[in-house]
Order: sequence, then C-alpha cells, then structure tokens
Amino acid sequence: MAIILGIDPGSRITGYGLVKTQPNHHHQFIACGCIRLEKYSLGDKLKTIHEVIADLVHTYQPDETAIEQIFFHENPSTALKLGQARGAAIAASALYGLTVHEYTARQVKKAVVGYGAADKSQIQHMIQILLKLEMIPPVDAADALAIALCHAYTREGLKSLGGVAQKMRYRRLR
Amino acid sequence: MAIILGIDPGSRITGYGLVKTQPNHHHQFIACGCIRLEKYSLGDKLKTIHEVIADLVHTYQPDETAIEQIFFHENPSTALKLGQARGAAIAASALYGLTVHEYTARQVKKAVVGYGAADKSQIQHMIQILLKLEMIPPVDAADALAIALCHAYTREGLKSLGGVAQKMRYRRLR
Repeated sequence: MAIILGIDPGSRITGYGLVKTQPNHHHQFIACGCIRLEKYSLGDKLKTIHEVIADLVHTYQPDETAIEQIFFHENPSTALKLGQARGAAIAASALYGLTVHEYTARQVKKAVVGYGAADKSQIQHMIQILLKLEMIPPVDAADALAIALCHAYTREGLKSLGGVAQKMRYRRLR
Repeated sequence: MAIILGIDPGSRITGYGLVKTQPNHHHQFIACGCIRLEKYSLGDKLKTIHEVIADLVHTYQPDETAIEQIFFHENPSTALKLGQARGAAIAASALYGLTVHEYTARQVKKAVVGYGAADKSQIQHMIQILLKLEMIPPVDAADALAIALCHAYTREGLKSLGGVAQKMRYRRLR
C-alpha cells in the first residue's frame, strides 16, 4: 500500500488529491482540494503551491506524486504559466522525497473513464463512483484524484482500468 | 545596501549571480555560477534549482531576487520547460522571503550595455567591466549578474545605466 498525491497544476487554480492504494484495486480516498491562486502575485502563487504541498506531505505522508505530462501547448504564454505552476509543484514534491510520475491527459482519462477523449464532467462522475464519494468533487480536485488513481492502477501493472471503469459505469447507468 | 540574487533560469543550465549594492553605483560582485542540469530527471532538475537557491540564501543572505520576465516565447514546448525552471526558482526565492522582481531582456540589456538589442558577448564584456572581474564570466552566469545589476540600478531610481555603461565601454576601448 502507498499513498499517492495527484497534482493538477494551474496558475489560477491548482488541484490536489490523495488516494491510498489497496490490494483489491478499490483504492481509498484520503483528501482533495483546490488551491485558489487568482489574487496572488507570481511569487506568492508559487510559494503557496510549495507550502500547500509541504502541508500535505506533513499531514498525509504521501509516498509518490503523479502529475499530468504536457508535451505541447497551443499557446506559448499559457505554456509558460502552466510550466511555472508545474515547476513549483514538482520541485516541492522532489524536495520532500516523493518520486514524480507523469501521465498524459489521454492516459489519465483512459485509466479512469475508459475513454481517452472523456470530458471533465465524465472524470468527475467516475471519480465519485470509483472513490465512493458522497459528493461530486470540483473539476480541478477531480482531475488531481484522476491522475493519482491513474498512477495507482499503473503501478500495479494494470495499465488501464478501462474495462473496470466501463463496467462500473454501465452498472450504475442500468 | 542590499544583496541581490539574479537568476537566469533554464532547464539545461540555470545561471545565478549575486551583487551587493553600493551607494556610489559601483555595485560589488559577490558570487556567480552555473547549475548544470542536463543529466538530471525533471524532478531532480527542479529540486536542484531549489536546493542551490536555498544554499545561496544560507551563504550570502540576499534581500531580493531579480529574474528575467518572459511574456511570449516562439515555441510552446520550450516555454513550458523554461516555465518549470522559473517556477522552481521563483517559488524557492519567495519561500525564503526574497521579493521577486522581473525585468525584460531588453531592460536588462539597456541597463547593462546601454543598448536593448545587445548580444550575449556584449553582456559578458560589460559585466566584466562593471563588476571589475578578472575573468569573463560564463554566458548564463553573466546573464544572471546582468539581471541583478539591472535591478540594482532600477531600485535606486536609475532606470537605465545606458549612459554610464556607454562611457565605461568607450573609456576601455580608447
């Protein structure tokens, strides 16, 4: 068993989610949240990301970090801002001894929804089912939990939970 | 008097330079260097940037950080990598209580060389003269010292040292 910290970095909102892996694949929800950064200066934004990760490490003692892998971005200015948030998050994770694992958006969606082009609401919906949450988590927290779950499935050798996720989805829809 | 840490972040090499401001504008060189990151994984790159800044803060106790301001970048993939290095550097600076000041490449060149389109070798040359260095500093360290000097001049209200830099250059060439 391991505790995984999923991070969905953004310069306006950074989502985080923690799951505890279970041998039966029914990974357990620990915590999730959104760090709202709109009002901060650049320095304070990145400092806040670092400090929240430090707090999460202190409180929940995660073993590994999972983060979305970005190859290209259509807008260089957005890529720079996203890179800065990612840089602060990855540096903090590595500094506290967490190994950093990256997954593409497609891998995350495939693992959690069973479909690489799933939309945000499908991710929120599946996260609620897979982690047995009473409420639908906010978009950025759901994305972070999805990245954490993707890593939880992948590290067990279950490269994609497509089948399991699909079955669960259909069971609920019936 | 204040100690300024200039940072020139990059995903392969991150340059740093420290100067101590002096009331007579003849700011004093403290230290400079290049952090070579080519061989590291992403997590270790960003962790190393953070750790070197932590070491510099511990050793030289700078008061303020100056870093190049980037608005746009022609290549989104490069912008993302640059953003990550910047994010780690800015987060570390803010975390250790340094205020972060940004200057465009044009402002830095204008302040140090007196010409906004100066090339790398002109910056190295002027940094050697202005800081009375025995040797020409490596490109990335010279850029970091130039950013630190740009902030040293600006914070005194001397928006551009164009005139002074030009005079010094001509004095040497004569």
